[in-house]
Amino acid sequence: MIKVIVIGSGNVAQHLISAFLQSTEIELVQVYARSKSALQKFDGQIAVTSNLNQITQADLYLIAVSDDAIGSLSVQLPFEGRLVAHTSGSVSIDRIDSKNVPAVFYPLQTFSKNKPVDFRTIPICLETNPQDFPLLEKVARGISSHIYQLDSDQRKALHVAAVFVNNFTNHLYAIGHEICVDNGIPFDILKPLIRETAEKIMTLAPSDAQTGPAKRNDVSTIRKHLEFLSDDNQKNIYNLLTQSIQNGQKL
Amino acid sequence: MIKVIVIGSGNVAQHLISAFLQSTEIELVQVYARSKSALQKFDGQIAVTSNLNQITQADLYLIAVSDDAIGSLSVQLPFEGRLVAHTSGSVSIDRIDSKNVPAVFYPLQTFSKNKPVDFRTIPICLETNPQDFPLLEKVARGISSHIYQLDSDQRKALHVAAVFVNNFTNHLYAIGHEICVDNGIPFDILKPLIRETAEKIMTLAPSDAQTGPAKRNDVSTIRKHLEFLSDDNQKNIYNLLTQSIQNGQKL
Repeated sequence: MIKVIVIGSGNVAQHLISAFLQSTEIELVQVYARSKSALQKFDGQIAVTSNLNQITQADLYLIAVSDDAIGSLSVQLPFEGRLVAHTSGSVSIDRIDSKNVPAVFYPLQTFSKNKPVDFRTIPICLETNPQDFPLLEKVARGISSHIYQLDSDQRKALHVAAVFVNNFTNHLYAIGHEICVDNGIPFDILKPLIRETAEKIMTLAPSDAQTGPAKRNDVSTIRKHLEFLSDDNQKNIYNLLTQSIQNGQKL
Repeated sequence: MIKVIVIGSGNVAQHLISAFLQSTEIELVQVYARSKSALQKFDGQIAVTSNLNQITQADLYLIAVSDDAIGSLSVQLPFEGRLVAHTSGSVSIDRIDSKNVPAVFYPLQTFSKNKPVDFRTIPICLETNPQDFPLLEKVARGISSHIYQLDSDQRKALHVAAVFVNNFTNHLYAIGHEICVDNGIPFDILKPLIRETAEKIMTLAPSDAQTGPAKRNDVSTIRKHLEFLSDDNQKNIYNLLTQSIQNGQKL
């Protein structure tokens, strides 16, 4: 069996640990965490060390820590010539100290604490040298069915795209929520629409799925909506996105 | 059985017709359409007239036409004192000519041609006078399990909120799609994230579900993303939504 060690104890690390524990093809031999208490829920299921010098032998080391800590952690690893991947969407592969073999193992998903995810549906984006790629891919296929090979430039682009479709989209939900609350409307009314908006683009290109006053250039509705909005921030966002839809019919 | 007549042959009209045909509690006695050809797929299932003077007797008349046409159509109806509802999210109840009893029957969903929807999951927002409300509600319950009573001001607010969570969200998907295409990345990678972003707020308030560089004030990632974006329009949207997330922690 391929041996994997996870370095880290945050959200991504914990979801990876759960996925590897369920995998029949990958052996999670050890986890390194500065503080063992973060991994209490895995008590008895995994070997945890908080001493870098006690990290044992494995085929792949996965550094799942905050972006800023990746570089210094990879420098501190007390071994050389082994395959070491970070799990970040926005950090270049070069951040892994070159005394080991640098790689990237980036699961593209929004992980919440305590909300279990079906890892098999999560896309994993991989990067390393051609020689070591098959091993990296084997580990990824052990926990997910959706594997992609992306270089660091593509991964950077993907991370920006993810900010638009995830972080910014969620903020639009928050604005919708605020408008509902301010007007005594249960937010539940919007939930089926939110779900259907996401489902629609599973089969349709987003530009083909576009509807609404901006798309059909319904000037009178747009004017009424802008009159309705009293919050300048909401008004600015309404204006900018309306203009973007109107100008960007090329999208 | 309660008798209903649908006036119109567009997207919303067709989805309503399908829903009523499946209902065991509502009888769709007739459909009025200027051009019968739009309703070909219902051939043999419904009585269609294109002559306003041939519209027969019913308990409720549903005007499902474009916003601009509601007023003039309601004036042209050759009867008085009957319950007449429009199906628009952005039009006031007053637009129904007062010779009849004005009402609103607004299904909040994004309807695509040829994509069947499960009408029972679609929220329907109702408005009319207290005396006629029970009948209106009975018709709505005949096709949906999610009925809300909203006045015209609330419906207007809801429609604005829907533009944010549906039309604007879809535009963010389109930007994500464009960034992928421009960088040779399959858009499919983003689909599980899009779905999960929508699913998350089914149980979590959107403000609690917010993640990303703006939320955690990760200045270095934000700077890198802005450097990456070469399209001014995308840059402006990135900036405005990032600022909105940072300022609006009250959301």
